[in-house]
Amino acid sequence: MAFADDPSAGTLNMGLNALWVMLAGILVLLMQGGFILLEAGSTRMKNAGHVAGKTIFTLGLGSIVYWAVGYGISFGSEASESLNKFMGVGSFFFDPAVASTDGSTPTTIFFIFQLAFAAVSLSIAWGGFAERAKLSSYLIFTLFFVSVIYPVIAHWIWGGGWLAKDGAQDFAGSTVVHLTGAIGALAATILLKPRIGKFNKDGSANEILGHNQVFTALAVLLLWVGWFGFNAGSTVMVADGFFGYVAFNTQLGAAAGAVAALLISWLVTGKADITAMLNGALAGLVAITASCAFVEPWAAVVIGLVAGVLVFFSAKFFEKIKVDDPIFALSVHGAAGVWGTLANGLFATEELSAKVAIGQAGLFEGGGWHQLGVQAESVLVCGAFAFVASFIVLWVVKQVIGFRVTEEQEIIGLDLSEHGNYGYPEQMKKAGTSV
Amino acid sequence: MAFADDPSAGTLNMGLNALWVMLAGILVLLMQGGFILLEAGSTRMKNAGHVAGKTIFTLGLGSIVYWAVGYGISFGSEASESLNKFMGVGSFFFDPAVASTDGSTPTTIFFIFQLAFAAVSLSIAWGGFAERAKLSSYLIFTLFFVSVIYPVIAHWIWGGGWLAKDGAQDFAGSTVVHLTGAIGALAATILLKPRIGKFNKDGSANEILGHNQVFTALAVLLLWVGWFGFNAGSTVMVADGFFGYVAFNTQLGAAAGAVAALLISWLVTGKADITAMLNGALAGLVAITASCAFVEPWAAVVIGLVAGVLVFFSAKFFEKIKVDDPIFALSVHGAAGVWGTLANGLFATEELSAKVAIGQAGLFEGGGWHQLGVQAESVLVCGAFAFVASFIVLWVVKQVIGFRVTEEQEIIGLDLSEHGNYGYPEQMKKAGTSV
Amino acid sequence: MAFADDPSAGTLNMGLNALWVMLAGILVLLMQGGFILLEAGSTRMKNAGHVAGKTIFTLGLGSIVYWAVGYGISFGSEASESLNKFMGVGSFFFDPAVASTDGSTPTTIFFIFQLAFAAVSLSIAWGGFAERAKLSSYLIFTLFFVSVIYPVIAHWIWGGGWLAKDGAQDFAGSTVVHLTGAIGALAATILLKPRIGKFNKDGSANEILGHNQVFTALAVLLLWVGWFGFNAGSTVMVADGFFGYVAFNTQLGAAAGAVAALLISWLVTGKADITAMLNGALAGLVAITASCAFVEPWAAVVIGLVAGVLVFFSAKFFEKIKVDDPIFALSVHGAAGVWGTLANGLFATEELSAKVAIGQAGLFEGGGWHQLGVQAESVLVCGAFAFVASFIVLWVVKQVIGFRVTEEQEIIGLDLSEHGNYGYPEQMKKAGTSV
Repeated sequence: MAFADDPSAGTLNMGLNALWVMLAGILVLLMQGGFILLEAGSTRMKNAGHVAGKTIFTLGLGSIVYWAVGYGISFGSEASESLNKFMGVGSFFFDPAVASTDGSTPTTIFFIFQLAFAAVSLSIAWGGFAERAKLSSYLIFTLFFVSVIYPVIAHWIWGGGWLAKDGAQDFAGSTVVHLTGAIGALAATILLKPRIGKFNKDGSANEILGHNQVFTALAVLLLWVGWFGFNAGSTVMVADGFFGYVAFNTQLGAAAGAVAALLISWLVTGKADITAMLNGALAGLVAITASCAFVEPWAAVVIGLVAGVLVFFSAKFFEKIKVDDPIFALSVHGAAGVWGTLANGLFATEELSAKVAIGQAGLFEGGGWHQLGVQAESVLVCGAFAFVASFIVLWVVKQVIGFRVTEEQEIIGLDLSEHGNYGYPEQMKKAGTSV
Repeated sequence: MAFADDPSAGTLNMGLNALWVMLAGILVLLMQGGFILLEAGSTRMKNAGHVAGKTIFTLGLGSIVYWAVGYGISFGSEASESLNKFMGVGSFFFDPAVASTDGSTPTTIFFIFQLAFAAVSLSIAWGGFAERAKLSSYLIFTLFFVSVIYPVIAHWIWGGGWLAKDGAQDFAGSTVVHLTGAIGALAATILLKPRIGKFNKDGSANEILGHNQVFTALAVLLLWVGWFGFNAGSTVMVADGFFGYVAFNTQLGAAAGAVAALLISWLVTGKADITAMLNGALAGLVAITASCAFVEPWAAVVIGLVAGVLVFFSAKFFEKIKVDDPIFALSVHGAAGVWGTLANGLFATEELSAKVAIGQAGLFEGGGWHQLGVQAESVLVCGAFAFVASFIVLWVVKQVIGFRVTEEQEIIGLDLSEHGNYGYPEQMKKAGTSV
Repeated sequence: MAFADDPSAGTLNMGLNALWVMLAGILVLLMQGGFILLEAGSTRMKNAGHVAGKTIFTLGLGSIVYWAVGYGISFGSEASESLNKFMGVGSFFFDPAVASTDGSTPTTIFFIFQLAFAAVSLSIAWGGFAERAKLSSYLIFTLFFVSVIYPVIAHWIWGGGWLAKDGAQDFAGSTVVHLTGAIGALAATILLKPRIGKFNKDGSANEILGHNQVFTALAVLLLWVGWFGFNAGSTVMVADGFFGYVAFNTQLGAAAGAVAALLISWLVTGKADITAMLNGALAGLVAITASCAFVEPWAAVVIGLVAGVLVFFSAKFFEKIKVDDPIFALSVHGAAGVWGTLANGLFATEELSAKVAIGQAGLFEGGGWHQLGVQAESVLVCGAFAFVASFIVLWVVKQVIGFRVTEEQEIIGLDLSEHGNYGYPEQMKKAGTSV
């Protein structure tokens, strides 16, 4: 019972927070397993090894880049105050303290958590590259996206930048992580053009089915589970148990998204499409990401329901305008990311905005139009920046080294063309060349 | 070292418990990944997308239903005392406090943990639906099972209901979760009748092999890992480290089940059947679920060994009486669930019963027959209630909208018939229609 | 705010550590899921059920054996002091205290953590058995490896044995876990001889491709995530947050390994081989395992980079000397394990060696040659012991019951020959017998 030699309450509290953020970081890294399965399962067998393997490679490269540059742009604090509104500077080749001495969460653990977020945003962007981009383009995009594009936006909203000062509410990154990644995917898919066979000459679209729905269903489950780290971990503290409230809303949003999407698919098309429903669950998660700490449970359900319907029609819309979005990144992370961010402007309560100490109540909670305006601003500004920056990087790639594989390579598949072996050698050999 | 402004010991203790229960809840939700792989791997390729995808959908729907109704039936406390013996009332459309103010684990986190249990029980029931039930029947069964059937039983044993008052020992749910789910599967499989081709006219059985043992082996590993949340999480506290003891027994039970099942399969059939062994590990886990906090390590090993042998012969038995049990739910969760619950009546020690403060020592530990009687009572009563309630719901489904797909639909597979696309489109196209 | 009735700071600190070590143990057990996917994905479809299923079986058997004997050899303390230098004695059929009463991490949780390590080492050894060893040999090797071979080495370095007293730095087991397992694989593969078709009569090697790169990529991700439990968990405490520093270095080492391996593969062979890159990530993780707590972040990057290059050439080397290493255990866990252990002798800093309180600074950090000598000693001694012991066990197996399946069995695959059914029955049936 004596406190002599025992850790102080401050140390114990730090330990509790450190443990939670570490767990959350691990869960967010586990989401990469979800992306491996989601992307591989949503594409064709001839590209499976490439799609799965590149996740590991870009996670590795991204980690080194984020350590060397990206973390410093997001959270480095040595810049002048005026520069700091726009980007951090400092902490490059991050050399953290070995231990926490001041009772705050160790920066090592905060780094892992933030790195895991950057890696998720990057994986979302890969949705626009799928089945036709050269391996080298992945490498170069990783360099720029993880060092500058993502970190600048993270700084604006989470690093004390100008959108943070404006009161932009984006608790765990519907905009920072999901919209940014989706916009990267949009830039890529515009520059790459649709996959061979996706659209017919008359403008109608063909369904290019992913090869493995067990993979995509398991992917959604892994992402769902990892999302508790994503959202509830963004409290970065255990304190009074508020992280549980965030997790609670997260579960409701995801669940509502899955239900709404299945029902809308059933109603509209007469069949309960598996992919639509999986996208609904993810859209619910993406949408609730911004708002999980700001809204009441009933609002979390509404946000998820809307996201599930939205993602269904969004996917139809992008197909109609002939944008090829193989992994549905534009709809799941883009449309739902925008909706989730705006939803705070509608549903954020005064009590919770005060608790989190960012922004104010939304339109339906008596706060008027102000917060909705701030939310719209952050969507527009971050979206525009992400698009311009991603487009420039990829446009240069396209001009200098080429962005898309040759037609022949695309037809035989990227496993052979980029890596020399099929990812499923026994099954592909039997099948012969398959378009 | 000063305590000013630092959290109190009570707050820190709450935080520790909150963190543990949150982690446990996440682990139990991860078990849904195990069920996706277990069910998909144990069935045929033509049903794989359906089997995997429906897990996400029913998890979503079940979450909403549990939030709206089920949690209140299990743990709501506004009913009169006499009603409360049988079911809770209150906390519908659960609107929890944002934070914990009284030092107890936040109700938000407790909700997630309990919801994850309900979802496991539901997934177990799907074993009886596999490869022939209409998608709409999943939807309707979820509504009733998660709102009433499971919550009532959970209330009886865990919510302060009448079996709790009788001293029924079911630490993490061999009966509440596993037997209830298995009984739901039993009602379903009786009403659905066996799959086409399972039994011959002369009464002999055919083996309908699952299509992917890598999936089923990985499933068992995910379930095994998740089970630490299931069992050790059921302490809902960190306190003196007793949760470690529960985890320790869990590991021994699972291990013993795997070993016993492989050896008995090898001895009896002359081959070391993979499925039998995987079922043995799961049966060990199911059996130790009730008893993990009440028995000594040697008894955990014995309970696991018996479960591993039992599940082997139980599977043979159900096949002999022509009950088609595609995922072995009746044997793994039913027979082993009964055994695990009864095992407390044999092996529970006085010390541990006192520590957990439920029931008393079992027959072999000097407690006489009393506890065994209580255990048998809870198995019989819960099993009977779950059967009658599940049977009625599914019987009405069968009469009103039909429970089973048509013969033609079953032959082409539920991926096409219920969802419009194969889960493995490239592989199935090559194979042509496959029975 | 009062401390009456509230837990003491010592109890809370114990709880924090218990929770972390439990989480870490769970993560390390989750790595078995990585091994299931890594081994199955790296081998052929005809062996997939066998390869995946045996992981569950040997995890089960290994758990029982470790409980009965192995833990006591590693950490039992009843032996005389002179014996204790070489092996522990006591705690057989481990019967731990129900709770922690003295403020230390509960032994139940420590047991689970250590058992998970033993299981990883065992799974590494299976790499040398792949696609041609009899199931019974797995069973017998498990008995000896988990009861004696691994525990003795663990005792030497982690249980207070003679290498610990010499100051051998092996924080989380580059030698204890990875090298020991790899040496077991080496003994096996030498005794088994190469798989049919691996080497031609002229001595040239054929590539026997693994059947599923989605599995192997997901495997690497699961192992990577689990490694945070492996390395950072080895602090066995939360305290000042040092476990975050260990995790930070782990991430850098893994990332550097992946990047280096992809680039070297691209440079040397002209193609970005997926398997080489995945091996690089794993080699980075294996190498940083010994040194994660002893080196600075820049050194972690260097250690990972070297490991990524080393594993590439090591794989070429073993192929050249006609050692068949289907899962690359000798290169990933052996060569990188040796490098990681030696790296401490180069990069360990004085500050961190003092903090961890083992050994001293390395050559590049002003410590001279001493620590490098100690590291080399531990590699040589542990490697020699593991080889001799594993070789004897397997040699006896070979003489008495036979180690390798017949040529015919190998050609039809171990799923049929050892278990009676294909792991992929639908796909294999279509394919016909496949070599």
